[in-house]
Amino acid sequence: MLKDAAAIVGIAESPFAKRLEASEAELACQVIVAACRDAGIDPGAIDGMASFTLEGADEVEIARSVGAGDVRFFSRVPYGGGAAAGCVGQLAMAIATGACRVGVAWRARKRGSGGRPWAGAVQPGVPECWTRPFGLLRPVDEIAMLTRRYMHEYGATREHLANVALAARAHANRNPRALMHAKPLTREAYRAARWISEPLCLFDNCLETDGALACVLVPAERARDCPAPPVLVHAFAQGLPRQHQTMVNYFNDDPLEGPGWACARALYGASDLGPGDVDVAQLYDAFTPLVLLSLEAYGFCGRGEAGPFSEDGALERGGRLPVNTSGGSLSEAYVHGFNLLNEGVRQLRGTSCSQVAGARTCLVTSAEGVPTSALLLRRGER
Amino acid sequence: MLKDAAAIVGIAESPFAKRLEASEAELACQVIVAACRDAGIDPGAIDGMASFTLEGADEVEIARSVGAGDVRFFSRVPYGGGAAAGCVGQLAMAIATGACRVGVAWRARKRGSGGRPWAGAVQPGVPECWTRPFGLLRPVDEIAMLTRRYMHEYGATREHLANVALAARAHANRNPRALMHAKPLTREAYRAARWISEPLCLFDNCLETDGALACVLVPAERARDCPAPPVLVHAFAQGLPRQHQTMVNYFNDDPLEGPGWACARALYGASDLGPGDVDVAQLYDAFTPLVLLSLEAYGFCGRGEAGPFSEDGALERGGRLPVNTSGGSLSEAYVHGFNLLNEGVRQLRGTSCSQVAGARTCLVTSAEGVPTSALLLRRGER
Repeated sequence: MLKDAAAIVGIAESPFAKRLEASEAELACQVIVAACRDAGIDPGAIDGMASFTLEGADEVEIARSVGAGDVRFFSRVPYGGGAAAGCVGQLAMAIATGACRVGVAWRARKRGSGGRPWAGAVQPGVPECWTRPFGLLRPVDEIAMLTRRYMHEYGATREHLANVALAARAHANRNPRALMHAKPLTREAYRAARWISEPLCLFDNCLETDGALACVLVPAERARDCPAPPVLVHAFAQGLPRQHQTMVNYFNDDPLEGPGWACARALYGASDLGPGDVDVAQLYDAFTPLVLLSLEAYGFCGRGEAGPFSEDGALERGGRLPVNTSGGSLSEAYVHGFNLLNEGVRQLRGTSCSQVAGARTCLVTSAEGVPTSALLLRRGER
Repeated sequence: MLKDAAAIVGIAESPFAKRLEASEAELACQVIVAACRDAGIDPGAIDGMASFTLEGADEVEIARSVGAGDVRFFSRVPYGGGAAAGCVGQLAMAIATGACRVGVAWRARKRGSGGRPWAGAVQPGVPECWTRPFGLLRPVDEIAMLTRRYMHEYGATREHLANVALAARAHANRNPRALMHAKPLTREAYRAARWISEPLCLFDNCLETDGALACVLVPAERARDCPAPPVLVHAFAQGLPRQHQTMVNYFNDDPLEGPGWACARALYGASDLGPGDVDVAQLYDAFTPLVLLSLEAYGFCGRGEAGPFSEDGALERGGRLPVNTSGGSLSEAYVHGFNLLNEGVRQLRGTSCSQVAGARTCLVTSAEGVPTSALLLRRGER
């Protein structure tokens, strides 16, 4: 079984910026080497690699450049924002079954200075041919439709979305690495912000960032020899639910029951822990409504109750369930959610800038709305 | 541990042809549904998926179309010909760790009627910028250079390459599914064939095929309830060796020690079995010299001894080590090596057209020359 067999023992990240000079491949190598240093492990010991299908640099180039050893396991996880937890989980599986002993997962992306995937004249396939002609051009347009349905079904309001954005910004304001570190956000500024795709305004959208992150996994018994407290991969699941359509789940019986629900069922099914055991959560937040949907999917409240759940600073430091404590994709950096993972590790090491006192268990999720993945991380013993 | 935890219980394949009318996605769905039927399992039970990064149709489209259930594991394996065994191995890992219970792996490819990857005006990257200007345009040009080095180092000859081609053709002549079923090949015809890239002639090259294949894996204990004899995934490894360069390993200390060597070390390290236990082998054969290199990499003979090893019909039915008993990529079909996998399953079921009597253990390898993968398969108990 996977349970607690592997541990995250190294993390690293590049600076986050609107534009970085280094290439994506260079950034990937830098963070992989830095994550190995954090783990006290020579890059020559790397024998497992996992990244996104969307990752630009390939394993051969990365392995040569960082001086990896003979690599015995490598995989790619599809669906962009849905992949970060999947990469770590697949490395944990490889370690649990003895396929490798030192695995690195990473994501390097120059989305801040690079192009927009929807800017080119792409011939739409299925199902895009059914949505593009009606104005659903960007991911935000697709999620805006789901958000409107969510508001209609459950009476959620923009004030609930604002709760997510304001919590993320407050966390970012305490995190010197965050792009929004020096930029406080008020509820009034949120209310006055321009639409990007109604009902989603500027602050409901993630940042556009150049950046890279990596983490290193080893068998749990080896983790005790590493410098930082080990963070165990307690449970892992991916989720691609029956009859799903990527980003536009509109044709399902319940369009609001997205991949997170299937992923959560598999995750808790593989776990000794439940939602009540989670001390802090890093929930994929390319758009604020995804956080509300994920609070429901992963069982922190009932269907339609995430709006009220988010009241009274629940998602902030000292709240019922602190969420995205680095500032997340909304206010730290948007690197396909990999920064949520590293922040989860920091929480369990006790080194977050918005530390939850005594945090022992952290949920990390990847994108709601596309085939996704999630991890339950636990603080290990030294 | 992975060892014997998962079993292949269903296989299927499309017809093989120079041109098939159905799209790659349609072919993929057809073979997945057919493999489930072979396994006696409803496609609605599918909860794990693995394929190639080069696969055209995505998981969402496939899952919707075949009516899969909630999918809890999905991965992609890079490097084309190196991926087939990797897909099956990663599903076996997912099953061994409880991440899924019914996994499908597949490859659908219209290479016969489609374009050639090297035909377009592609801006070469690294390392291609160091080889393309010198005439290494196609994979066959890259492997021809390695073959020349192999002949120079060890005194191997074209007659040794012919041994591989003739064994494959003899197997294909007994296999009604093989594209070359009705086309015998003589040593004289081999010797007279035109060069594709000297020293490799027409018959040293694989076919160009439209086709698709799939297989289904379940936990070993469930496999006993399936119609066909279970084929256990005894061991699995991938291999991307230190300082490797894809297809053009020329800059290494030993250019002829390719990914297969690293993969073999990892594979046997994870196994209770050694080369001497292997009754029949399916060795990736996009080009004949890759079979000779793989015989050495996987320990069936010493370095440089594969040429002499191939004499006296050693690779044919009744020989020391029957290889590629369906006709393989050279004479059955070229679908990125996935047909080697299905033939390995048939050998252990006892249903090959060139059956090795009492075969209990089969080695299946993916491409030598690129980051690769391999499986040791065992016949399971009913």
